[in-house]
Amino acid sequence: MNKEFLSDEFYMKEAIKEAQKAFYKDEVPVGAVIVSENQIIARAHNQVESLNDVTAHAEILAITAAENHLGSKFLINCSIYVSLEPCIMCAGAIELSRLSKLVFGARDPGKGYQKYSGDLLKTMTLIVPGILEKESSSLLKSYFQKKR
Amino acid sequence: MNKEFLSDEFYMKEAIKEAQKAFYKDEVPVGAVIVSENQIIARAHNQVESLNDVTAHAEILAITAAENHLGSKFLINCSIYVSLEPCIMCAGAIELSRLSKLVFGARDPGKGYQKYSGDLLKTMTLIVPGILEKESSSLLKSYFQKKR
Repeated sequence: MNKEFLSDEFYMKEAIKEAQKAFYKDEVPVGAVIVSENQIIARAHNQVESLNDVTAHAEILAITAAENHLGSKFLINCSIYVSLEPCIMCAGAIELSRLSKLVFGARDPGKGYQKYSGDLLKTMTLIVPGILEKESSSLLKSYFQKKR
Repeated sequence: MNKEFLSDEFYMKEAIKEAQKAFYKDEVPVGAVIVSENQIIARAHNQVESLNDVTAHAEILAITAAENHLGSKFLINCSIYVSLEPCIMCAGAIELSRLSKLVFGARDPGKGYQKYSGDLLKTMTLIVPGILEKESSSLLKSYFQKKR
């Protein structure tokens, strides 16, 4: 394993910790962190139910928090780690914010952005799918099994 | 002109009033209103610069406000009127919120959602493009001419 890969796993674990917070609040367990110069500058989890707001996905909340932290509307040279493949709304927000790198865990063939527009982020953002995919997926599976 | 068309023009004028507010704040002039049972329940304009947040598009702010007003995360049987064709982030939010109808003014071949995924909203949402297109466009043109 190279250093880059270890590093992606480290930050993805933090995103999964956020997803676990969502799980315990009975939210769909998705978490995100944003990293700038090896530091986590924002962390968030899905809050759609608690805020009664479909736009309150982990990525949107993390992007707003990171912009606030940096005092900049652009997140150039920052990376976002998300436990689930972003939906089309969040992929759009990632593109608008000019995040340089997207790392995600579980794939989402049903609602993930790649279903609609596989090339949406390809010009600006390095994409690393499938990091800690099993851990991210198993949390989501537990959630949906509980709901049945 | 049928009644439906007059009605769409009426609400689009309100969206353009919101866009004008953005214009006077030196924001890209885009406005949106959300209508439920012939009443405007939310109105918003683009606030990307003032909030330093790329997610603060008129549609996202209007959706959050409408959900808050109704106490529901879904906006079934509601319509959104936007002065500009939504970007992919906002189209995703419109889909997530289950808005029944999208009416927009100016088309946006460069950044509009139809460039990426023309069929994104087709299953759930009635789409009416080009209402008061000239009025919406001319406000945007004035803004970008001023910036040059």
